[in-house]
Amino acid sequence: MISCMQPTLRAFDLAHLGHIELYTPKPDESLNFFVNIMGMTESGREGDSVYLRGWDDYEFHTLKLTAAKTNGMGHFAFRCTSPEALERRAKIAEQAGFGVGWSDGDLGHGKTYQLKTSDGHNMELYYETNWYKAPDHLKPALKNQAMRFPARGANVRRLDHFNLLAADVPALREFFENVCGMRVTEKIVLDNGQEAGVWVTATNKTYDVAFTHDHYNARGRFHHLTYAIDTREEILRAADIFLENGVHIETGPHKHAVQQTFFLYVYEPGGNRVEVANAGARLMLAPDWQPIVWTEAERKKGQAWGLKTIETFHTHGTPTIDKPVEKPELVKK
Amino acid sequence: MISCMQPTLRAFDLAHLGHIELYTPKPDESLNFFVNIMGMTESGREGDSVYLRGWDDYEFHTLKLTAAKTNGMGHFAFRCTSPEALERRAKIAEQAGFGVGWSDGDLGHGKTYQLKTSDGHNMELYYETNWYKAPDHLKPALKNQAMRFPARGANVRRLDHFNLLAADVPALREFFENVCGMRVTEKIVLDNGQEAGVWVTATNKTYDVAFTHDHYNARGRFHHLTYAIDTREEILRAADIFLENGVHIETGPHKHAVQQTFFLYVYEPGGNRVEVANAGARLMLAPDWQPIVWTEAERKKGQAWGLKTIETFHTHGTPTIDKPVEKPELVKK
Amino acid sequence: MISCMQPTLRAFDLAHLGHIELYTPKPDESLNFFVNIMGMTESGREGDSVYLRGWDDYEFHTLKLTAAKTNGMGHFAFRCTSPEALERRAKIAEQAGFGVGWSDGDLGHGKTYQLKTSDGHNMELYYETNWYKAPDHLKPALKNQAMRFPARGANVRRLDHFNLLAADVPALREFFENVCGMRVTEKIVLDNGQEAGVWVTATNKTYDVAFTHDHYNARGRFHHLTYAIDTREEILRAADIFLENGVHIETGPHKHAVQQTFFLYVYEPGGNRVEVANAGARLMLAPDWQPIVWTEAERKKGQAWGLKTIETFHTHGTPTIDKPVEKPELVKK
Amino acid sequence: MISCMQPTLRAFDLAHLGHIELYTPKPDESLNFFVNIMGMTESGREGDSVYLRGWDDYEFHTLKLTAAKTNGMGHFAFRCTSPEALERRAKIAEQAGFGVGWSDGDLGHGKTYQLKTSDGHNMELYYETNWYKAPDHLKPALKNQAMRFPARGANVRRLDHFNLLAADVPALREFFENVCGMRVTEKIVLDNGQEAGVWVTATNKTYDVAFTHDHYNARGRFHHLTYAIDTREEILRAADIFLENGVHIETGPHKHAVQQTFFLYVYEPGGNRVEVANAGARLMLAPDWQPIVWTEAERKKGQAWGLKTIETFHTHGTPTIDKPVEKPELVKK
Repeated sequence: MISCMQPTLRAFDLAHLGHIELYTPKPDESLNFFVNIMGMTESGREGDSVYLRGWDDYEFHTLKLTAAKTNGMGHFAFRCTSPEALERRAKIAEQAGFGVGWSDGDLGHGKTYQLKTSDGHNMELYYETNWYKAPDHLKPALKNQAMRFPARGANVRRLDHFNLLAADVPALREFFENVCGMRVTEKIVLDNGQEAGVWVTATNKTYDVAFTHDHYNARGRFHHLTYAIDTREEILRAADIFLENGVHIETGPHKHAVQQTFFLYVYEPGGNRVEVANAGARLMLAPDWQPIVWTEAERKKGQAWGLKTIETFHTHGTPTIDKPVEKPELVKK
Repeated sequence: MISCMQPTLRAFDLAHLGHIELYTPKPDESLNFFVNIMGMTESGREGDSVYLRGWDDYEFHTLKLTAAKTNGMGHFAFRCTSPEALERRAKIAEQAGFGVGWSDGDLGHGKTYQLKTSDGHNMELYYETNWYKAPDHLKPALKNQAMRFPARGANVRRLDHFNLLAADVPALREFFENVCGMRVTEKIVLDNGQEAGVWVTATNKTYDVAFTHDHYNARGRFHHLTYAIDTREEILRAADIFLENGVHIETGPHKHAVQQTFFLYVYEPGGNRVEVANAGARLMLAPDWQPIVWTEAERKKGQAWGLKTIETFHTHGTPTIDKPVEKPELVKK
Repeated sequence: MISCMQPTLRAFDLAHLGHIELYTPKPDESLNFFVNIMGMTESGREGDSVYLRGWDDYEFHTLKLTAAKTNGMGHFAFRCTSPEALERRAKIAEQAGFGVGWSDGDLGHGKTYQLKTSDGHNMELYYETNWYKAPDHLKPALKNQAMRFPARGANVRRLDHFNLLAADVPALREFFENVCGMRVTEKIVLDNGQEAGVWVTATNKTYDVAFTHDHYNARGRFHHLTYAIDTREEILRAADIFLENGVHIETGPHKHAVQQTFFLYVYEPGGNRVEVANAGARLMLAPDWQPIVWTEAERKKGQAWGLKTIETFHTHGTPTIDKPVEKPELVKK
Repeated sequence: MISCMQPTLRAFDLAHLGHIELYTPKPDESLNFFVNIMGMTESGREGDSVYLRGWDDYEFHTLKLTAAKTNGMGHFAFRCTSPEALERRAKIAEQAGFGVGWSDGDLGHGKTYQLKTSDGHNMELYYETNWYKAPDHLKPALKNQAMRFPARGANVRRLDHFNLLAADVPALREFFENVCGMRVTEKIVLDNGQEAGVWVTATNKTYDVAFTHDHYNARGRFHHLTYAIDTREEILRAADIFLENGVHIETGPHKHAVQQTFFLYVYEPGGNRVEVANAGARLMLAPDWQPIVWTEAERKKGQAWGLKTIETFHTHGTPTIDKPVEKPELVKK
């Protein structure tokens, strides 16, 4: 049965990015950042973790913030489109050698299949989820909205995407294509033929995951997660709010050439990079979209309006490391 | 094979709304409206039709404007996700008694299956499409964009959705659910149990089609089509531009309670209603979304911020008629 | 010396609108509205009054909120451009019969001349003011800003203007022109020659005060005060926030034809009308601007994009009254 | 009589910035830039000059574009508040040694007094002006607007301010304060006591003119002129439009720390720097505003959100020169 469905199912087993677990060595400060500066809402706590969400996220949480000795990403998780899709993807992952095993889930969701990406990042797949139910004081005026608009801080709307650093970019692309059934929408290919960055999607959004080459050659590091706000104007306002609160602004606001995202990158107090970006005007509706390939020369032009790409963008990942790991050059596949 | 795939395929055979054909008794004035006021671009002409598109529409056209004796909608068309999906849906439509037959397509797309909705609107399904190739003077600066930004008029970005009037709303809902495999995201149900309006989607957009009860009891009329712009601010600016050009503004700008769309409705010179609305911040990512049901009491509150729904919203459709058709009351199914 | 300077001084003795005192029978709820929903900041308390300001207001306060048995306006105040300008205007007011006398000011400002408008509204003039000094936790990141951006509620920026109801509009216009030295920028003149509304300014803003005919024929009532926000998008967001908080939205958001203000009117819990509007893009720089005169026919078109003017706009003022006062018709002067 | 009025008049003789004359060696390309990319409107031609304006500029022109062998600024002009104010300022300029003499004006305005700034820039003062009268096809829908909204290119609204390079900044500050009666709102003072930049105003706008030290030590060069657009979003859109049209973007969009202007700098085809910036939310209403003084350390932090100031900002002026002029260091006064 798998063989007959594979071509069509390729793009449809993963419903959407579900949540990300971030590690922080400064849990109180990080929590303050996400709640009071980003404008997110806490929906629960368990162990060393606080569960958080944006006002338009329909699930119990999209961010699991966990106190830890170092920073970095605990795991990322995708919700599947059905229980069958979850089983199917678990089997594919296991057969391909990326499987870890099943777990019972946590406060946010049920039965979960754990796996590792080709670069070693922790990943989870699940279907059963805990729909967010707003308490009375957070009930929205309009019933088609998950929670009332917070009117606090940057008022981020929903988790949009995340970005990984990878020692081996092509292997990670193959992982997302073949194991996850995602589609490549854009990529950067250097003059020597190496893929330096790839953007993939499981939805009508133009990307749900991006990954770029780690100039420090480490495996499995985290680059950033992104919460979406409705307009570019609100991202400019977020920049004002970050400035007022002493949050380190790494680069932006400006417009990426790749994917045309209007971006703003900051470091949360635990050292993880966080982006706020505009939500969803650009959609990928074509079922036969051919990946846009950016050349080395095109990337040297900088971002859309000419801003140069900042060097830390290729070296600052979490867990934070000081210098490149000793490792032979990335092998072209 | 169909049976085994049906549950999953239900939501995935239709890729997205492709285009709409509008009839206009004032072709020159309507063309001027769409090109110079809406900011669209002509990509071709054939017979009595001009083919038009927004700057971010990837296909040859999303609007086919056809000179005719009356106004109204010629047909609407959805692109399928694959040739197989097209065949599958054609077979389902035929078996369900809505089929008309195959055609060769027109300037914009290839082999096409024609059908009729339960209310009599003309519909088309196709897969092969003519990707838009910008001529040199319209090539964009960024290669991941279909065409350069026009910087003219309202600068509408892409076709977003359309709205039908229906004599029989529940029958039309069943058509879109069962024949097209679309999902209901929101609906209005009156105190007497009648469905007065339904919103359905084939994508991660929260709706691609809406349909409401025609208070004039006619069958198969057209309510409006909608082009998306990125921000609410640009819709306010569009209102300024409509005002400057003497375009009739029917209602708005304001925010709908249903779907929370920020709307602005005008009549193009041929008399068809056209909406500009904000693009895509609100997405429907949950694979198991349960329809939001609005009651009669809730709808009486008016739009989101209290604007009363204008009476013509329930009676002005195209082709234009002066008064209700003689017809027994809508039967509750 | 006065005679030689009068022509030039006419427009320059009043520097700007300073503050407004509002009466509220629900002081706790009104305070919550201004602080948590409007996003204003408390700078002090004395007696039954709380002093409040927007984040960009440079003075100690722009709103004095006073607990009282009824709603309405306590007084409005203009800051003068110099001590001499204050003396000059006090003398003019006294000679014209509108003077009340000198007071020592309150928490917000020094020596003050009190007067009454021709319609009986209380007015104050002062020069010495208490510049706002932000406490450490409210210090802005940029030293050219009065206070840090609050990132709370509607984040209103600064007091912009206010609106009075008047039994005798022409007399009030003469008061503002001759006693205050303000200039008329726009007005509404009915077919019978009566002035129905007048907009006057003391600055490069297109108006600092507006006043319209009270259809209830009362004298000295208050219509609304307005805080400015930077963009129309932020006013739309304010509408969302009012909706979430159960604030009564009277009309808007929409664009006035007169002055082209993008408006949104609500009632604060005490019953006073409050507007949020966009700040300052439209300036009145011409020293010889000729008033724009709107006819009765033009006003019947409604607001800029066609919204009809709501009836309560001519009858709801504060103190609230139920019905017209018994009074002969307004005499044309 | 002058002595008795001087304190008060200091700020009120100049009504506002009237227009700027730009020289361009590429007149056709420059004209295309201002009309089709900036969205300005031609109101007349005479000799080698084309007269242009933004849609909200009330005068005949705010830009006089003159074909010339080199680029640079022909002159800048301020409108006075009255004929008497013009006479007064002419006398003051003459007595201070900056006067050139009277002329009859040009297409845009009447009797004019010509002078030179302390750094040698050409300046004009006038009162009688040619109010713009829109031809029928450009009449606005709302009678309180100078011209209909163009819906073309960047749709710049009105001339906002300009910026000069100066060999001697303190002398130029004294010129604007004493000869023109303008007020300093912000300035940059280096650790060695030198003034590196000064912002002055004649209105309630926070600045009408800025001037900074020319690192090439030339006298009398031009830095940029600025047209205002309503929102930051529209400036981002302008960046898209400049990108599409191959216009060189020097820096931005970003927010200045000084004056908090949201800026975007480009070079028009003739080589002159042009800025689009947001209009007027920030006003300077206080009659006794004390200048904000930025230190060298503060300026090293870059712009508001951390963007480094681009080196060409201190060296690219027009007329364009390749390298510093030989000249002793700027003497501290």
